[in-house]
Amino acid sequence: MALEKMGTLRRTDYCGELTPARVGDTVTVAGSIAKSRDLGGVIFADLRDTTGILQLAFDDGTDKQVFAKAASLKSEYVVMAQGLLRRRESVNKALATGEIELYVTELRLLSEAETPPFEVRDEVKVKDELRLKYRYLDLRREGMHRPIVLRSKIAQLIRNYYCDNHFCEIETPMLIKSTPEGARDYLVPSRVQPGHFYALPQSPQLYKQILMLSGFDRYFQIVRCFRDEDLRADRQPEFTQVDMEMSFVEEEDIETMNEGLIKKLFKEILDVEVETPFPRMPYAEAMARFGSDKPDTRFGLELQDVSDAVRGCGFGVFTGALEAGGSVRCINVKGMADKMSRKEIDKLAEVAKTYGAKGLAYIRCTAESETSSFEKFLAPEEKAALRAAAGVETGDVLLAVADAKNDVVFAALGALRLEIAKKYGLIDPDKFNFLWVTDFPFFEYSEEEGRFMAKHHPFTLPNEEDLDKVETDPGSVRARAYDMVLNGCEVGGGSMRINDPALQNRMLKALGFTEERARESFGFLTDAYRYGAPPHGGMAFGFDRLVMLMLKKDSIRDVIAFPKVQNAGEPMSGCPETVEEKQLRELSIALDLKEAKED
Amino acid sequence: MALEKMGTLRRTDYCGELTPARVGDTVTVAGSIAKSRDLGGVIFADLRDTTGILQLAFDDGTDKQVFAKAASLKSEYVVMAQGLLRRRESVNKALATGEIELYVTELRLLSEAETPPFEVRDEVKVKDELRLKYRYLDLRREGMHRPIVLRSKIAQLIRNYYCDNHFCEIETPMLIKSTPEGARDYLVPSRVQPGHFYALPQSPQLYKQILMLSGFDRYFQIVRCFRDEDLRADRQPEFTQVDMEMSFVEEEDIETMNEGLIKKLFKEILDVEVETPFPRMPYAEAMARFGSDKPDTRFGLELQDVSDAVRGCGFGVFTGALEAGGSVRCINVKGMADKMSRKEIDKLAEVAKTYGAKGLAYIRCTAESETSSFEKFLAPEEKAALRAAAGVETGDVLLAVADAKNDVVFAALGALRLEIAKKYGLIDPDKFNFLWVTDFPFFEYSEEEGRFMAKHHPFTLPNEEDLDKVETDPGSVRARAYDMVLNGCEVGGGSMRINDPALQNRMLKALGFTEERARESFGFLTDAYRYGAPPHGGMAFGFDRLVMLMLKKDSIRDVIAFPKVQNAGEPMSGCPETVEEKQLRELSIALDLKEAKED
Repeated sequence: MALEKMGTLRRTDYCGELTPARVGDTVTVAGSIAKSRDLGGVIFADLRDTTGILQLAFDDGTDKQVFAKAASLKSEYVVMAQGLLRRRESVNKALATGEIELYVTELRLLSEAETPPFEVRDEVKVKDELRLKYRYLDLRREGMHRPIVLRSKIAQLIRNYYCDNHFCEIETPMLIKSTPEGARDYLVPSRVQPGHFYALPQSPQLYKQILMLSGFDRYFQIVRCFRDEDLRADRQPEFTQVDMEMSFVEEEDIETMNEGLIKKLFKEILDVEVETPFPRMPYAEAMARFGSDKPDTRFGLELQDVSDAVRGCGFGVFTGALEAGGSVRCINVKGMADKMSRKEIDKLAEVAKTYGAKGLAYIRCTAESETSSFEKFLAPEEKAALRAAAGVETGDVLLAVADAKNDVVFAALGALRLEIAKKYGLIDPDKFNFLWVTDFPFFEYSEEEGRFMAKHHPFTLPNEEDLDKVETDPGSVRARAYDMVLNGCEVGGGSMRINDPALQNRMLKALGFTEERARESFGFLTDAYRYGAPPHGGMAFGFDRLVMLMLKKDSIRDVIAFPKVQNAGEPMSGCPETVEEKQLRELSIALDLKEAKED
Repeated sequence: MALEKMGTLRRTDYCGELTPARVGDTVTVAGSIAKSRDLGGVIFADLRDTTGILQLAFDDGTDKQVFAKAASLKSEYVVMAQGLLRRRESVNKALATGEIELYVTELRLLSEAETPPFEVRDEVKVKDELRLKYRYLDLRREGMHRPIVLRSKIAQLIRNYYCDNHFCEIETPMLIKSTPEGARDYLVPSRVQPGHFYALPQSPQLYKQILMLSGFDRYFQIVRCFRDEDLRADRQPEFTQVDMEMSFVEEEDIETMNEGLIKKLFKEILDVEVETPFPRMPYAEAMARFGSDKPDTRFGLELQDVSDAVRGCGFGVFTGALEAGGSVRCINVKGMADKMSRKEIDKLAEVAKTYGAKGLAYIRCTAESETSSFEKFLAPEEKAALRAAAGVETGDVLLAVADAKNDVVFAALGALRLEIAKKYGLIDPDKFNFLWVTDFPFFEYSEEEGRFMAKHHPFTLPNEEDLDKVETDPGSVRARAYDMVLNGCEVGGGSMRINDPALQNRMLKALGFTEERARESFGFLTDAYRYGAPPHGGMAFGFDRLVMLMLKKDSIRDVIAFPKVQNAGEPMSGCPETVEEKQLRELSIALDLKEAKED
């Protein structure tokens, strides 16, 4: 068939928005053929556009030329169709528009299509490589298409919410200065200033603080950020951040403002009522109860400290850990003794080991017997004391980790907790459990760097009560930082900021910055503090992750139109690529591939 | 004075939003001290926040401690103040809130400030370098602050307009493939794939077309773009584009959609009624009448072709140009003979020369005399014929340019037209004259490259009627491209796109691409066309420029929070900067500064 033009025909309606109320109307729709069936004398074709699918119908009453065109339709052909909207004879309940169809009087064949490398249907399993290479086909599938449309709606709701609350969206530069601390920067060589480089922003942190010092008072931005780190399922080299900052506020004001945002998003997109205010939990409590600074509170299985109950017992693993200043903690898996076999406990022990635990101790109490991994080391009364401390009854399984380092105990039990909940279906997938984790440590010791580093960032306000310990006991200094946690994922985080140049320089010094290096890196910010700096703070959401969690997708790739893959490349266009010698010469750089091989 | 904390005090109102209707209310405001006057027993201080200024008042009825704090206030101190809103004794008409003041009962001194390097007032002239280094102070000034706030409002209106019209905002990647054609790319070395580079996007052109092929149908994005070109007053290395694309449309649909946007923006931001539809003018007409493809139609001074009137005359400059295939064109500056001296005409001739004209011929007809630059070359009847052709009467000045190249004639007279209009105040600054310039040439010969290049871009649909001339007479092929012009500035441009792989490859070939290079560069797009491609087109606005024109600013720097300067650097943070050797090593690149020096 020859291709046609639209001529004067124009779409009047979107497929997915038509309802039985419109039956009898003449409408014009446009889109791609999802499938077509020629039943001999009667042809049905599903037309797909960005909103959904509408059935096109042709029969012996149809104009002959139109019918001939309809007979030529194949999947992914692009057409425009005008006709009469009518009720279908047999309703298709699987389709939103399943009660209606378009009885076509005009059909324009706008583009043919070769047979695509895979069928454009959610049900068809396709290899990732193929999906990413032909991303434009993959994005036509309902399951991939809808999240991108919803992402746009979510972004729009966010923007309107902040704008309605006196915020200004202000664009900050993408070509900025490379600064120490934080992740690895992407660099951009400057042509005009040979030997000099821009960095792509990891976040607009310094600029948003400068905006507070410029009197903008309430800033937000939905902004692309960059981190040159190795990829994981929920990490991309470029990602989108909902970034916000406010002046003349304390933590609670920032939290309340953003709880309101979440409440609105969940109501409007998912029709879910989120209760506010969210619970607040100090970091220390989150670790002690859940072994995690982003606890999933949709289920129990909380950690218990049984150190006191086992102190001085006959089991060297326990006592050794305690003597070295560590702890013995456990999870009591209530009523699961029959479901959790010895073999499964062994598997959990393997999980615990990947988090550094030396092993996993257990007591398993079925109605028939009680078995434990430390049978021969504990006297009956010691075991009874441990059982009592952990509240272990018949039918329960107690899993315990002992280590000289509390971090290892927390990490291992925190991971086991999630593992068990997933395996035994203890998580209600319809729950959205939010909380704030607060009072994070300011410093975190980096074994790699051999020094303390800022857990949040160096501009975070330390807790006033802990100021006298900045130099003497940095590990115990708390930050006025908070994370928003949803179902065990950190969806956002932020802090109150330092607005005093003397305190800022003191914190930078504690982080190992010489005066000169602090000046070079952050001098413009500390200078700015000198000319009047309002109290301010803010936070940032990982937008990709937030959308992913809202739409219950497994990977942020599913909510990004053109994501990068493992090697930080993009298979459709084939970037990154080699460039012409001339381009490098203009930038005063040369390839230095030897080094890469030697390393 | 000792610094204080906000405690439980919270802002209830913004300074600039308070009106006499609120007199009698207790309100709390927060911001910076713009100025303060101690009149002995009475203190007035202007408090500035992001919305405006409110006067704070203190007198002998004020609490002693509060009064003492008020006496210590200096410019740029940051405070929070609570009090009773009352009428002022002497109204300040220069101030929006000039009828009211806050009689302060509580004052919190939140931050002191050193004396800033310049006063934070619009009236104070400050050197550009100082303004940019202390951008946070400059941005506190009303004249710099307001445009950034309005820019946010404009962006929000744009987004809501498109979203209300079935558009989706879809984020496209920032780390993409470097492609030939267009301006110079910024490159980003890949660490994971040594020797390979990303480019930062000059526009999301290919991605938005891919989105049309993904069935998204209506896309928009307010998006950062990058061009590594030398800076001009209205160019930045990174700039913001309002980018949009639609399927199942023709030019008129795209134009109508965007006229609606402009109408809404001008109404809501400026309360200006923009008439739609905008006039449409083919490129050839714009050049012939205005000597420009972005004509300023707020004034006349149109070009006239007087070639026929002077053909065969005695003036070699005219006849020579005509014989070489060029033209003689003029502007008749009506009634300006008395104002435009010989000396001023000479200055205009210098302007014409910078555009390649060899000179500027003129006739100046005052009531007393007629003088011309070609007195002795033209017979009286030849001169009369020229005068008649151009409609020159007593009091007029005729300015003519003759050249073998029409481009030179257009460029020179187009520039003179603007120069004269500005100099003699012929432009009504309150007018906003929009038009569409259409039917651009597809190809443009590049002397530098020695070949034809795409004037718009290689994905533009050529005019169907001109298809047979693509190979034989490329210079005459018109593109289905259009620019939106406002007051002589291009604010946006776009085109209908090719959606047929065969035609795309043909146009790439005509642009000098080998089959292999076309495949390498754009293969993923032409491949995508094969699986069903709806007719589509779109456009992009230069957002910075649009905001600049709406707010009548002289430079886009005035509507960008943190602009770059001439050397593509940013003086406040001091980027770009040298980076650590280790960072380059990780990216498998090395500096190659020798080359830069040799060039």
